[in-house]
Amino acid sequence: MESYRKELWFEASRRRELINITSYIDQCLKESSIKEGLVLVNAMHITASVFINDDESGLHSDFEKWLEKLAPEKPYSQYQHNGFEDNADAHLKRTIMGREVVVAVTEGKLDLGPWEQVFYGEFDGMRKKRVLIKIIGE
Amino acid sequence: MESYRKELWFEASRRRELINITSYIDQCLKESSIKEGLVLVNAMHITASVFINDDESGLHSDFEKWLEKLAPEKPYSQYQHNGFEDNADAHLKRTIMGREVVVAVTEGKLDLGPWEQVFYGEFDGMRKKRVLIKIIGE
Amino acid sequence: MESYRKELWFEASRRRELINITSYIDQCLKESSIKEGLVLVNAMHITASVFINDDESGLHSDFEKWLEKLAPEKPYSQYQHNGFEDNADAHLKRTIMGREVVVAVTEGKLDLGPWEQVFYGEFDGMRKKRVLIKIIGE
Repeated sequence: MESYRKELWFEASRRRELINITSYIDQCLKESSIKEGLVLVNAMHITASVFINDDESGLHSDFEKWLEKLAPEKPYSQYQHNGFEDNADAHLKRTIMGREVVVAVTEGKLDLGPWEQVFYGEFDGMRKKRVLIKIIGE
Repeated sequence: MESYRKELWFEASRRRELINITSYIDQCLKESSIKEGLVLVNAMHITASVFINDDESGLHSDFEKWLEKLAPEKPYSQYQHNGFEDNADAHLKRTIMGREVVVAVTEGKLDLGPWEQVFYGEFDGMRKKRVLIKIIGE
Repeated sequence: MESYRKELWFEASRRRELINITSYIDQCLKESSIKEGLVLVNAMHITASVFINDDESGLHSDFEKWLEKLAPEKPYSQYQHNGFEDNADAHLKRTIMGREVVVAVTEGKLDLGPWEQVFYGEFDGMRKKRVLIKIIGE
């Protein structure tokens, strides 16, 4: 069994942003030379997400509006977590979107469906944060 | 390390449907001859889900009502994604239900708890869609 | 490839409780002697969750309030599942929080970000329930 590990760093320019990271994962998979196995891709921070969905700007606007409805950013005082911080909503939004994805590796490629794209979802941005890529297989 | 891959095809007769796929995964695991490892089961489409819960019809009705409350199908015009499509709600519903499950394989069997059953959750049905099963182990 | 399996048992004293289980998983990883691979940690029950977030009591209060807003426990009669049972809300809450996490193993350690802690989320407690830990790697 072979394994590969890499950290990707992101710094979103806004509080919330969805970044397509599929090509970075493709690149890591090539570097790993692993042909059959599993890729784990996870946010290393608890106010961010890695998830799979469509790369369509209308849908991304829908996600923004929907997450704000389910877990509004403001008023900050509605959350007990917001004593010294103001990011409780980001913890909740990331919970809905998910921390991680596991993707199959088949014949040296990410085994994704036709519209599946991997995103880094930032919900408390404007600082450097990391995504972990771990690949195991042969 | 051994690996196994299979696609399962489903065509739900309604827009939304929950299909118990545990026996299909059991069958794949037998075909794979893998005794210890992990199974990844994921929807290959971004308006569908693979998740684990109870096979109880009352609960399934509760899921339907609850998902319609959190991410209503109509009016279609409430979502920016719904220009040429009408399935934005399905992207959101699948986000809540999850894309994938990872299940342990122990002594050649799916290592599930007493009531755990694996479901394909269709939220934009009436067309052919796929689930990917990838097993790695020994 | 090596594999390791352990069940952890919990009995929450209340209906809902969040228990930090990171140190138990650390201990299992040491027992396994696996240096590179993946750990799967999943609830074996469908009214409980394993998830990763911050070990901060204010945030945990926020989770309680938020989950009660999205999937209220009462009135019990609002759910069709609640014929002989009263735990439909627990099935829904666990769906939001997630069944499982997959964590990378690197150089013999859980490869977690700075604030990532693994929790068992109980939503229908006061009875014995299990978490499964499965580690594969080398």
